[in-house]
Amino acid sequence: MTNYADAGVDIDAGNRAVKLMGEAVRSTNTPAVLSELGAFGGLFSTDALGEGAVLVASTDGVGTKVELAARYGRWNGVGQDLVNHCVDDILVQGARPLFFLDYIATAKLVPELVAEIVTGMAEACRAVDCALLGGETAEMPGVYTDGSVDIAGTIVGAVHRDALWPRTDAIEVGDVLLGMASDSPHTNGYSLIRLLLDRRDDDPSDAFVDWLLTPHRSYLTDVDELRALGVEPKALAHITGGGFFENIPRVLPGGVAAEIELGTWSVPAGFRQLVEWGDVPDTESFRTWNMGIGLIAVIDAIDVDAAAAAGHRVIGRLVASDTGEVTLVGDWR
Amino acid sequence: MTNYADAGVDIDAGNRAVKLMGEAVRSTNTPAVLSELGAFGGLFSTDALGEGAVLVASTDGVGTKVELAARYGRWNGVGQDLVNHCVDDILVQGARPLFFLDYIATAKLVPELVAEIVTGMAEACRAVDCALLGGETAEMPGVYTDGSVDIAGTIVGAVHRDALWPRTDAIEVGDVLLGMASDSPHTNGYSLIRLLLDRRDDDPSDAFVDWLLTPHRSYLTDVDELRALGVEPKALAHITGGGFFENIPRVLPGGVAAEIELGTWSVPAGFRQLVEWGDVPDTESFRTWNMGIGLIAVIDAIDVDAAAAAGHRVIGRLVASDTGEVTLVGDWR
Repeated sequence: MTNYADAGVDIDAGNRAVKLMGEAVRSTNTPAVLSELGAFGGLFSTDALGEGAVLVASTDGVGTKVELAARYGRWNGVGQDLVNHCVDDILVQGARPLFFLDYIATAKLVPELVAEIVTGMAEACRAVDCALLGGETAEMPGVYTDGSVDIAGTIVGAVHRDALWPRTDAIEVGDVLLGMASDSPHTNGYSLIRLLLDRRDDDPSDAFVDWLLTPHRSYLTDVDELRALGVEPKALAHITGGGFFENIPRVLPGGVAAEIELGTWSVPAGFRQLVEWGDVPDTESFRTWNMGIGLIAVIDAIDVDAAAAAGHRVIGRLVASDTGEVTLVGDWR
Repeated sequence: MTNYADAGVDIDAGNRAVKLMGEAVRSTNTPAVLSELGAFGGLFSTDALGEGAVLVASTDGVGTKVELAARYGRWNGVGQDLVNHCVDDILVQGARPLFFLDYIATAKLVPELVAEIVTGMAEACRAVDCALLGGETAEMPGVYTDGSVDIAGTIVGAVHRDALWPRTDAIEVGDVLLGMASDSPHTNGYSLIRLLLDRRDDDPSDAFVDWLLTPHRSYLTDVDELRALGVEPKALAHITGGGFFENIPRVLPGGVAAEIELGTWSVPAGFRQLVEWGDVPDTESFRTWNMGIGLIAVIDAIDVDAAAAAGHRVIGRLVASDTGEVTLVGDWR
């Protein structure tokens, strides 16, 4: 006789994980979640969306930040990372989150670890009124290296089709770039960070590790506050993989480009440290990391004073350009 | 100077993969996909859904079937596996697919391999009018073992809230269980299959490997055909992990249980072979594998003749039960 236990699949561990995270998941339910219907869950009513609604969906992971989480045994943060990264990815299209689903896979299922990740996801979901609608946990010893965990998530949000960002037609030379502060490297550039850490003989300080593992910031509230001040962004650029150089041009029409004025914000100490360790030139650091700016809003120059009331800094402006390439002027050091 | 290339991240490979799979992905677009709006994609209009629509969402992987795909270098099939598994998971709630998003992660990105997986996904999506709306590809050398790939997907479908399955109130003793044939083990029980393969000295035949890698069947068309014959299922059970024993009870109300009449269908040769190799008792084989039946429809006994016209077999019936436990009667050998 052969059974699942022989094949290395721990069904009991899966059941324990489900039990541990159940309450956290349920706490994210919003009125549109039809948890009373059906035996399977995953049901979401569209009645509140109204005519002209567009669903905006995005799938992502948190990249090699999971390796750092594994090294230090801290998992709650990457759960938040995953949700917030997804929230920001659809925010740049103007969408508010409706629901989120996760996938967690590992070589050997540790129920407490899975529950910690999912609890982090649930916290981040609750903060933006997003339902954690479903998920899957997989144990695959031959696919994942010992002790490794990977996580991926899918968010679905909604926006009225007339309110979609970027408003490309409204963007013009002279528009101002507002920089919203990041909380950490968020979820990008961790392969290079690990390389730089591994090259050193000494262990990084606790404060440095804390900073590295600080979750991706959700900018939904910041953008809401900006709009409450009467400032309607023309576009948002989420500074993720590809940094300033790849993410800003994606939201701009032809004929304009971003000129970033270095020195208009203080680059956080952690990035200064990383740049020093690797002797990383600006052409690489501003491509790999957010350098302290996690989201950039393109706003009309007329709105600068109102925007300043929200505490955000002007970090550049749009200039005429044939190439659309981002230029860095001045010095941040 | 340090750059991404030093950190082992191959950006060029990612770009090549995107290029290779672009046309396959675009070919899945449905009228509700707003590909002309915005720079980011992932937009889906809800206008055609109408009042009372419920979104049904599900995330899943294909488990350790990816290890078998890696061993034999055949990836198109697991792309289809992933989509069809998800299609069937929401079909049991009555939902039709709207859109799908994928996550593909590996130690070392091979663009042609990723394109093969995504092309398989696109084929499966096109077959059920589902848009392949987005996806993410990740390269994580420290997390995945050499040569390994994992894939996960999220499907979002819709159903009117009055048409949700299971129709638990309508289910009663005497209802008939209709078995719809599977094409392979689909996406379940591969850990045990690999264990049984690895124990043997000889290589499996090409025909056996072909069968093992045959994709998960989508039952959407089968169910549509059944309804076109005037047979409205009361519930559907998707025979996945947990097999007959766990998936059938999930859709049944209290007081009834399924009695499966073995011998009413011919168990495929591949399952016979696996059972023989492992001396696997029915209590395990019907929990681990689909044994030739991938979807079970609960129908009224009055509909049996109409259902027979679609070529499906009656494989059991509902009986009164205090425990709700599935019983197997007769012999399939």
